[in-house]
Amino acid sequence: MHIVVTNDDGIVTPGLLALATAMRKLGDVSILAPDRNWSASGHVRTIDRPLRVREVVLSDGSTAWACDGAPSDCVALALCGFFKDPVDLVVSGINPFANIGDDVTYSGTVTAAMEAVIGGLPAVAVSVDSPDNHLGIVDYQPAAEQALKITGTMLKKGLPKGLLLNVNVPYIPGDKIKGIRITRQGKREYHDRLDKRIDPRGKPYYWAIGDLPTAHEEPGNDVEALLNGYVSVTPVQLDLTAYRFLPELNSWNWE
Amino acid sequence: MHIVVTNDDGIVTPGLLALATAMRKLGDVSILAPDRNWSASGHVRTIDRPLRVREVVLSDGSTAWACDGAPSDCVALALCGFFKDPVDLVVSGINPFANIGDDVTYSGTVTAAMEAVIGGLPAVAVSVDSPDNHLGIVDYQPAAEQALKITGTMLKKGLPKGLLLNVNVPYIPGDKIKGIRITRQGKREYHDRLDKRIDPRGKPYYWAIGDLPTAHEEPGNDVEALLNGYVSVTPVQLDLTAYRFLPELNSWNWE
Repeated sequence: MHIVVTNDDGIVTPGLLALATAMRKLGDVSILAPDRNWSASGHVRTIDRPLRVREVVLSDGSTAWACDGAPSDCVALALCGFFKDPVDLVVSGINPFANIGDDVTYSGTVTAAMEAVIGGLPAVAVSVDSPDNHLGIVDYQPAAEQALKITGTMLKKGLPKGLLLNVNVPYIPGDKIKGIRITRQGKREYHDRLDKRIDPRGKPYYWAIGDLPTAHEEPGNDVEALLNGYVSVTPVQLDLTAYRFLPELNSWNWE
Repeated sequence: MHIVVTNDDGIVTPGLLALATAMRKLGDVSILAPDRNWSASGHVRTIDRPLRVREVVLSDGSTAWACDGAPSDCVALALCGFFKDPVDLVVSGINPFANIGDDVTYSGTVTAAMEAVIGGLPAVAVSVDSPDNHLGIVDYQPAAEQALKITGTMLKKGLPKGLLLNVNVPYIPGDKIKGIRITRQGKREYHDRLDKRIDPRGKPYYWAIGDLPTAHEEPGNDVEALLNGYVSVTPVQLDLTAYRFLPELNSWNWE
């Protein structure tokens, strides 16, 4: 079992190392991750320039590969044969913030897993719902243990082609986590607003961001699981067709 | 009706102007698009730097706004109040290549429409399936006419929240287009391979790309519609939950 571990926060982050360490209990681990933060970068493929990859040593002495592309570029490299051994599984994370609701198409953590699924592999994206101000001192251990358990179960049972598991772990001590809930993707509410400013040369520039997004707790969704102390496991599919709306759309007169 | 038109190929491309011109028959059009090409850029939100926007004049003399962010950044700006009037609809394109199958999460054309949907608006992404070597001399008129017809129908009938329409038009003369087919998202097959090269200073660099992706024609999918001379209209949803797999996942023993 050859597992590639990547993330969207960059190669030096402790969440990546915690995840790689946990995955070593399931197989041989290769770490190939971006050399910088790619949060909110989406599902990128770098096509107009080549990618650079350099060997680095992480804080536990293990070897890893730092790439100047996006998380999904790292996965593409791995799937194209960057490593001598073929890849069996891609695991992405541990992201220090939850990736729930509409985060999934923006998230470098989740889109790295999407790239693996499009390449025909199973994949798991792992995030921990830590508060913003804990960045840098997040304890990734409980999330790493959950990732190990969930990935191990998934490998034993087998995940259908075209799916990934999006795992979000509440930021509470490991023995306080109540268990695993299979969830559906909730809704985020974003609070972005336009902040127009004038630079020292008199030219305008714009920030189109605001407070952190909030989330709607509903029975069975990822938000509810997290808020109630459960790990949320959402199966995510790459087929975005709104099947339930096909009959209605077929009934419209398009001329 | 205030319609914002954007794209992922950049503000000077003829597909953008063809789409904007068609949309003027449905309402007031504002053009806000990236100042450069963002193909395969995914669903991006620029959060670590502000955005610049400058007024430009297009080849037909109309005013437009060029932004140094991604297509989804342009939509975010528009939804945050960049324009005096509130926005009612976002239309993205016309992309000179098809966005079908697994292209949807990579595509700047489609992810711009996703950003609008997350913001609560209806949205349409429009692409024309032109061959690679026709770039620059693509006739966008047939696709623009289809976009007008489809968007007009959608406005009349009303699109449920959380959905967008992904429209792909075959690259044939307008009078040869057989009609509209409501489709589901097909599958792409990518043919990427690793091409390792050595730069003049002896350092390696990597291309992880290959031949253009191919597509699987199946009854009812977007690929089949295009290949048979029909416009494909796929309703795309932002809820990526694999609902059909929830019961199976719930039956697994996770401990």
